[in-house]
Amino acid sequence: MRLEIDSPPTIVWVDDRVEILDQALLPTEVRTVELRSVDDIVHAIGRLAIRGAPAIGACGAFGVVLAIDESLRAGGGASPAEIGPAVERIAAARPTAVNLRWAVERVVTAVVDLGNGDERREAALSEATAIFEEDRSACDSIGRHGAKELADASAILTHCNAGRLATTGIGTALGVVYGKAMVGQPVEVFAAETRPLLQGARLTVWELSAAGVPVTLIPDSAACGLLASGRIEAVVVGADRIAANGDVANKIGTFSHAVAASRFGVPFYVAAPTSTIDIATSDGERIEIENRDPDEVQQLDLRTSHPGPVEVWNPAFDVTPAELVTGIITERGVLRPDFHFSIARMIANE
Amino acid sequence: MRLEIDSPPTIVWVDDRVEILDQALLPTEVRTVELRSVDDIVHAIGRLAIRGAPAIGACGAFGVVLAIDESLRAGGGASPAEIGPAVERIAAARPTAVNLRWAVERVVTAVVDLGNGDERREAALSEATAIFEEDRSACDSIGRHGAKELADASAILTHCNAGRLATTGIGTALGVVYGKAMVGQPVEVFAAETRPLLQGARLTVWELSAAGVPVTLIPDSAACGLLASGRIEAVVVGADRIAANGDVANKIGTFSHAVAASRFGVPFYVAAPTSTIDIATSDGERIEIENRDPDEVQQLDLRTSHPGPVEVWNPAFDVTPAELVTGIITERGVLRPDFHFSIARMIANE
Repeated sequence: MRLEIDSPPTIVWVDDRVEILDQALLPTEVRTVELRSVDDIVHAIGRLAIRGAPAIGACGAFGVVLAIDESLRAGGGASPAEIGPAVERIAAARPTAVNLRWAVERVVTAVVDLGNGDERREAALSEATAIFEEDRSACDSIGRHGAKELADASAILTHCNAGRLATTGIGTALGVVYGKAMVGQPVEVFAAETRPLLQGARLTVWELSAAGVPVTLIPDSAACGLLASGRIEAVVVGADRIAANGDVANKIGTFSHAVAASRFGVPFYVAAPTSTIDIATSDGERIEIENRDPDEVQQLDLRTSHPGPVEVWNPAFDVTPAELVTGIITERGVLRPDFHFSIARMIANE
Repeated sequence: MRLEIDSPPTIVWVDDRVEILDQALLPTEVRTVELRSVDDIVHAIGRLAIRGAPAIGACGAFGVVLAIDESLRAGGGASPAEIGPAVERIAAARPTAVNLRWAVERVVTAVVDLGNGDERREAALSEATAIFEEDRSACDSIGRHGAKELADASAILTHCNAGRLATTGIGTALGVVYGKAMVGQPVEVFAAETRPLLQGARLTVWELSAAGVPVTLIPDSAACGLLASGRIEAVVVGADRIAANGDVANKIGTFSHAVAASRFGVPFYVAAPTSTIDIATSDGERIEIENRDPDEVQQLDLRTSHPGPVEVWNPAFDVTPAELVTGIITERGVLRPDFHFSIARMIANE
């Protein structure tokens, strides 16, 4: 298993800009895109050229640096008031993942008390880089904790992409897969394709194949029968936001796997850095769910499933109730039910 | 609500041939295809130009007439031995739906004792036409029974297409929807798109829109959250085969809706003619599930989700255990649990 893959990084800061691997083109085309402005950042996040809660958090953090640069180039001082509107545009580029707003606010907080623009710029880049590095390190820790927790589970079902392409490191759910592989545990992945945008088919299959991890692609709707068959030993998914009670917002379809896993006695794990936990949101009902363009469901490139006007409900995420979650694998260890208490205890010990 | 729609029939016998609406092209193109040989029949069923258990049953029945014609044209007498290989090819064109083999065998049985080829031909067409007419009538009855059973349920979730396009009449699951509309009950449908071949998005949305029934298209993976929300009052699906104990083989994804419906207390109904019940199959584990081409999952016309070789599991159907089924709406009334007994009682009363 070759765990070092030969592909451009998901996201990296280079000189005065962000470079990202354009995930909207994968796997047909492997192309790096330069993001040189706040507009570029907001557009890239919105069109899912970069996606995955931790990765867009890092992207948003670097976006604040670009906002400061734009203020300085325009003769301003990059004060919080001056960069405020640009920062808010970045933080609001996608509503569900909490990491984006968390990262943006963390960078802004790091610069708010500084005296001049250059100091702010330097501190912002330093803080954004710290977020980037912390996420990479968190992924490694999640991988280690996950490998220990799931040492006996080799057949894993995952949804969407919570891998290298979703983080600055080896991933969260796929971080667990790579973590297992790195310590020599057998592992194979069943990847649900993840309609409508096929992140499972396009991204998870791509990165696992590149790393030499055996992967089988399935339609989302085949997961229930697979879970009932006894073939799957654990479901492991990422998260876009985890509420204080352990409810998990993640890619639409996650909930369905959790319900089936619960019925058939398959453990259901969420792997996420603690930055994904939003202690200010008491439960899943209070998480804003992004509704996306109906065209994502209606159109498969040149093929249109239904050409006329039709009502489409296209939520990007669903909320899996905490009662269906076996454990939350974080960089600080595995949280267990009752999550309301285990999350509060972890926060108190920070 | 205009329940008479202006489109070619799903299947019809014309002079010396079968004419079908090519469902592989819908909804982008509305085109009728002529099937003039056993080869044409087998090919059309295999590529899903005609699909839906009752519709392929009727198609297979007419296919036996074409097999007899081919024998007679070749100077044969259309004896069971002469037409046997052609008949077996038709019956085996798809393995899961029991109606196909049932219909083919019924036509063969009707001609087996007759003395000459012309008599056989006449009797075969008569029997196939009877199957065609009985299915149309069964759909009407299913619609009536369904409207009575689900009089208070207006928001209905369905999967795949079990409508006009799947039968010779108004459909089974959608027969219930049309049955409700015909007696003035409010009804709206949430149609799961049904990956990989999108029969929900392409066919159900098309025929319900044409009939003026309000329909909302959803990704399959959004059904769980929708069922949890309380918005759906009943799930109604068709069936490809129902085992003697009530286990239901239907389009892949059905099982998932049934598990979620059970968890959230939404009634889950199967609507199917009694010809779909296979008393010779004791339970769902004994139903052969067709595995189809990986390309169906990997390719979305010009877009390929993953271009390289990749393992794909592409079962066309899954089996929903009887314990998850609230009722089976047939042309002879609604069967209720314990299905093992209600099915046996119905068969005994035939």
